Amino acid sequence: MERNLLLTVEYDGSGFHGWQRQPGIRTAQGELERVLSILCAQDVTVDGTSRTDAGVHALSQKVTLRGDFAIPTANIKRAANNLLDGDLRIIKVEEMGEGFHARYDCKGKKYVYRISVDEASVFERNYVWQLSVRPDADLMRQAASYIVGTHDFACFQAAGGEEKESTVRTISSIEVTETGNHIEIGVTGDGFLYNMVRIITGTLVEAGLGNRSPETIKEVIDSKDRTKAGLTAPPQGLYLAEVYF
Amino acid sequence: MERNLLLTVEYDGSGFHGWQRQPGIRTAQGELERVLSILCAQDVTVDGTSRTDAGVHALSQKVTLRGDFAIPTANIKRAANNLLDGDLRIIKVEEMGEGFHARYDCKGKKYVYRISVDEASVFERNYVWQLSVRPDADLMRQAASYIVGTHDFACFQAAGGEEKESTVRTISSIEVTETGNHIEIGVTGDGFLYNMVRIITGTLVEAGLGNRSPETIKEVIDSKDRTKAGLTAPPQGLYLAEVYF
Repeated sequence: MERNLLLTVEYDGSGFHGWQRQPGIRTAQGELERVLSILCAQDVTVDGTSRTDAGVHALSQKVTLRGDFAIPTANIKRAANNLLDGDLRIIKVEEMGEGFHARYDCKGKKYVYRISVDEASVFERNYVWQLSVRPDADLMRQAASYIVGTHDFACFQAAGGEEKESTVRTISSIEVTETGNHIEIGVTGDGFLYNMVRIITGTLVEAGLGNRSPETIKEVIDSKDRTKAGLTAPPQGLYLAEVYF
Repeated sequence: MERNLLLTVEYDGSGFHGWQRQPGIRTAQGELERVLSILCAQDVTVDGTSRTDAGVHALSQKVTLRGDFAIPTANIKRAANNLLDGDLRIIKVEEMGEGFHARYDCKGKKYVYRISVDEASVFERNYVWQLSVRPDADLMRQAASYIVGTHDFACFQAAGGEEKESTVRTISSIEVTETGNHIEIGVTGDGFLYNMVRIITGTLVEAGLGNRSPETIKEVIDSKDRTKAGLTAPPQGLYLAEVYF
């Protein structure tokens, strides 16, 4: 009998060349499939909600595993975590109805981007964007207010992603939180273009540093021109935080 | 003219087989010597205050670099950090008087040991000891009170270290701090035997879990018998935090 399982997984992106399987290269999908194939005693493939890039982390990636295999659902988490290397971990395994799929049924996602304005630290090098100057969080919030809503976000799409039929997306919220020497940007939306959160972050930081005024963000969006937006923030500050179905 | 420099360095021990230079193996001392030899245009050696084990971190390791080389002192930090890999970083470079030595002039050190009682996290795997049960911090403090002072600490010395003339040391303070799901143990003393802080930590955790009563620590110390003390806590929770001259 075919089973349809939904896995919630967490990974430290530092040691992976991204989510997506690539022959001969260590990726999160590849590692998960390698270990699950051992446990299921057959070659299995999995499909994740988000194809995170190299260096990007996941606090909660959602993964569909389908097939007819003997291992009881209740044993998969512990057995897989024993075989995995420690930088990828299954948090939860759930049995889903026949039609459910982690990617096609995704209604929205939340990403978190972490910035440090501490003195550079070896312990944070893989987990935050280390800035030497503190951006103003209020200016970042003002700039973010122009992004929230339903817009054609072509300006925030990097080349090299999949061809998308439309570049219209709805960003339902952007929260900028300051805690000591850390700034966290939470971006929630119904879907994201290639590198979208990292380009939004780079643009908000430029606003926070006073290098562009918040009001110009509206023009950037209207231009649909990637070159008008800010730089792409580095991957190691980005976390896939939540997936909504 | 021979210069005598004192370097303060920070490293993430996860990627190093400890401090001490070993041919063909990546160590913190080896990496530092490799990079400084390039900058000094000659083979240089350095000497650190503490020979941390594989996986152990340093927030502030102190390192003596002596020699006659051209690079100005003010340029060493930036130049070295540009050549280093990111998991070891020079924080400060100071010129010292002729006789000063990072190890021989050390009057004391502080180590910090970090424990997490959160659900296991991939992001903390290299930085804390992940416990599934929360030890009682008050019981740990009671047990620690028997350790503070000047004692023969043979019971807290692992086999395999250097031969020491005496196993008498003075532990001036042990602080147990709880913050949310983290417990931090700060141990300050004039000197430490091989694996001493890790064995103290293992012993305090056993007391905190109710597996040994705090008062028995006095008997453990009096016994001078390693087998009477607790297990050796794993290396990844340990940080060399401060060096006193």
